[in-house]
Amino acid sequence: MSSTAGLVIPCKAAVSWEAGKPLVMEQVEVAPPQTMEVRIKIKYTSLCHTDLYFWEAKGQAPLFPRIFGHEAAGIVESVGEGVSDLQTGDHVLPVFTGECKECAHCKSEESNMCDLLRINTDRGVMLTDGKSRFSIDGKPINHFLGTSTFSEYTVVHSGCLAKINPLAPLDRVCILSCGISTGLGATLNVAKPKKGSSVAIFGLGAVGLAAAEGARIAGASRIIGIDLNPNRFEEAKKFGVTEFINPKDHDRPVQQVIADMTDGGVDRSVECTGHIEAMVSAFECVHDGWGVAVLVGVPNKDAVFMTKPINLLNERTIKGTFFGNYKPRTDLPSVVEMYMNKKLELEKFITHRVSFSDINRAFELMLRGEGVRCIINMEE
Amino acid sequence: MSSTAGLVIPCKAAVSWEAGKPLVMEQVEVAPPQTMEVRIKIKYTSLCHTDLYFWEAKGQAPLFPRIFGHEAAGIVESVGEGVSDLQTGDHVLPVFTGECKECAHCKSEESNMCDLLRINTDRGVMLTDGKSRFSIDGKPINHFLGTSTFSEYTVVHSGCLAKINPLAPLDRVCILSCGISTGLGATLNVAKPKKGSSVAIFGLGAVGLAAAEGARIAGASRIIGIDLNPNRFEEAKKFGVTEFINPKDHDRPVQQVIADMTDGGVDRSVECTGHIEAMVSAFECVHDGWGVAVLVGVPNKDAVFMTKPINLLNERTIKGTFFGNYKPRTDLPSVVEMYMNKKLELEKFITHRVSFSDINRAFELMLRGEGVRCIINMEE
Ligand SMILES: NC(=O)c1ccc[n+]([C@@H]2O[C@H](COP(=O)([O-])OP(=O)(O)OC[C@H]3O[C@@H](n4cnc5c(N)ncnc54)[C@H](O)[C@@H]3O)[C@@H](O)[C@H]2O)c1
Ligand SMILES: NC(=O)c1ccc[n+]([C@@H]2O[C@H](COP(=O)([O-])OP(=O)(O)OC[C@H]3O[C@@H](n4cnc5c(N)ncnc54)[C@H](O)[C@@H]3O)[C@@H](O)[C@H]2O)c1
Ligand SMILES: [Zn+2]
Ligand SMILES: [Zn+2]
Ligand SMILES: [Zn+2]
Ligand SMILES: [Zn+2]
Repeated sequence: MSSTAGLVIPCKAAVSWEAGKPLVMEQVEVAPPQTMEVRIKIKYTSLCHTDLYFWEAKGQAPLFPRIFGHEAAGIVESVGEGVSDLQTGDHVLPVFTGECKECAHCKSEESNMCDLLRINTDRGVMLTDGKSRFSIDGKPINHFLGTSTFSEYTVVHSGCLAKINPLAPLDRVCILSCGISTGLGATLNVAKPKKGSSVAIFGLGAVGLAAAEGARIAGASRIIGIDLNPNRFEEAKKFGVTEFINPKDHDRPVQQVIADMTDGGVDRSVECTGHIEAMVSAFECVHDGWGVAVLVGVPNKDAVFMTKPINLLNERTIKGTFFGNYKPRTDLPSVVEMYMNKKLELEKFITHRVSFSDINRAFELMLRGEGVRCIINMEE
Repeated sequence: MSSTAGLVIPCKAAVSWEAGKPLVMEQVEVAPPQTMEVRIKIKYTSLCHTDLYFWEAKGQAPLFPRIFGHEAAGIVESVGEGVSDLQTGDHVLPVFTGECKECAHCKSEESNMCDLLRINTDRGVMLTDGKSRFSIDGKPINHFLGTSTFSEYTVVHSGCLAKINPLAPLDRVCILSCGISTGLGATLNVAKPKKGSSVAIFGLGAVGLAAAEGARIAGASRIIGIDLNPNRFEEAKKFGVTEFINPKDHDRPVQQVIADMTDGGVDRSVECTGHIEAMVSAFECVHDGWGVAVLVGVPNKDAVFMTKPINLLNERTIKGTFFGNYKPRTDLPSVVEMYMNKKLELEKFITHRVSFSDINRAFELMLRGEGVRCIINMEE
């Protein structure tokens, strides 16, 4: 146990007081972990669109003040009652969704959608007692996704922590906490392209580039990237994308363009835009007989997926995935190993680095659509 | 070679001269098989909804006169040039779709949608030379689905014939030519329920009952049948259906009724109605995390499949199948063996038998919705 175990820890956190306003560096008090919880020292965190989306609070009920952040890597400071598989000093990735290992989903080989610890974007408190572990002058500050990594210390449910190889560089593997694993797993675990096959990736943001990286690792021979932003292609080449289509350059649906390029359709497609038109195209661009389309992007609530049944009857498959079908505790350690074994390349995702005090710059970069991942160093 | 090889064979056929009018027993002339074709003596045939549908000709361009029939079993009389894997005396099932063994689909492990011999409902002639092998007084009669089994002799492309165990009783295995294999394969090859799992079957016609039979064989512990016709349940019990839902008995969507009965949804569902509402329900009634829905029914051309993307993103899968994903030549012989090994029960599908001269009675029974399969004995 560390010397701070059981005590309240005062530390720095970047607090979001108001929707869309710059975060403010504050001194917060972090309470000790309760039953089944773990307090961790965050070493590196990065920014993902989901943080930006809830910070902008344009599409959902605002919940402020709040400490955002969910892509990160840290070290266990102390553990609460009942936590037996983690101890002080363990290296961990906090994850926005968890794995209780006891519910029907955790027991199923196929699902990672834990009933107990499934993502909950509306909750600003801990599950155990419905309270926050963060406060400023005794006033609670809301948690985000059960992770709140924009703080030097945070408290996380032990079911949402993946214990990883202590030799893994935390300033790189931190990005495996969310978007990169999501895209990678969508390809490797769900689309499962065979060696030599063709794969279409819709949307070349962080998630889509990770999906392309999965296709590269699987040995796909053609990786076709589709994005409305022509600038994405340059970046995408580094991720194995061999061809690029901008739907705006064509006056027929992009699924037809793809069918013409590939003698009837691609073997696999992965949708990473969150736009419903792209979802439909991603489905309809796969080859009949064996094509599989995987949906990753989260569209707005009113969107409806529509297609002619014959597209399905002609032996196409469509599947959705959540967090790339990785079970956070069981599977993430092996993704870290893929990086350690040099199978998975993480460096190319990291386009920017800032110190914690400059965290608002990471927000600005993402708002301008620059780069892929910006690593925030908590100790600078 | 038989004594009739190379000669025109005069024989009886039930000819459909006009949409919806009783078939007329005629003397037809059956030309010898051409390159890659086989002439077979039909022993037993049965009637499937697809025959009825094209005979009624309400939904598509009529093509008359025509010899219908596509579910059957027969014996090879003679083979045309280039046919090396079949010979006089072989027992065969003619199939409405084929397997050339050379196209991308035939070479793919996953597809059975042969490019060359895929079902074609509009074609009334043979592929080889664009001509019919049937004539009356020199005037050609149209083929149907490349099989035209309502004739004592018929000519079929060799790629559309499955060579089966000569010990198999043709008056039973004839029903494996179409509907029964379609439903059975939809469950066994595509939905793949695990032992002890729950399966919902939408539509309890021949195809749905065969899908239920597949679920029974796979060891499903709950088989929930859904049909708008309450009379279907009695029949369905013989096929292992354990529970029955009539959507008309409920004022909320049937997918919700099923979710409530099964703690969130069934593990697998198979849609065998051909109605779009049932397709949507079949998809939405499967459990998140691992549920798989399989579509079999062919809806009308204007139907659109619609669902909220979140239903997919919550890790549900939807797949369509054609002929239960069986490759006709490669896989049907083993389905016949499943019957021979008493794993698959065929007798319960056969509710009526008529002689060839009474073929119109089989149409009447189907029009009245009575029974499942009516076997037509060509030699009576
Ligand atoms: N980022 C994550 O950690 C994460 C995790 C799970 C799911 N998701 C979902 O995955 C999706 C992608 O996330 P991201 O962070 O990579 O987003 P992003 O905004 O960085 O990238 C999306 C890309 O899609 C392109 N695009 C938009 N509409 C398109 C269309 N119709 N056709 C082709 N391209 C189009 C955009 O130009 C952009 O380059 C989002 O819906 C997100 O909710 C993200
Ligand atoms: N019969 C075949 O050989 C074959 C082969 C391939 C595909 N198909 C397709 O499979 C489907 C079923 O074929 P079949 O021969 O079993 O048909 P069928 O008409 O005998 O059975 C369909 C059943 O579905 C029920 N039904 C209709 N609408 C429904 C709804 N909304 N909800 C619940 N039940 C509903 C009907 O009451 C009927 O009992 C058809 O669409 C057919 O085109 C059939
Ligand atoms: Zn769980
Ligand atoms: Zn994220
Ligand atoms: Zn073929
Ligand atoms: Zn049929």
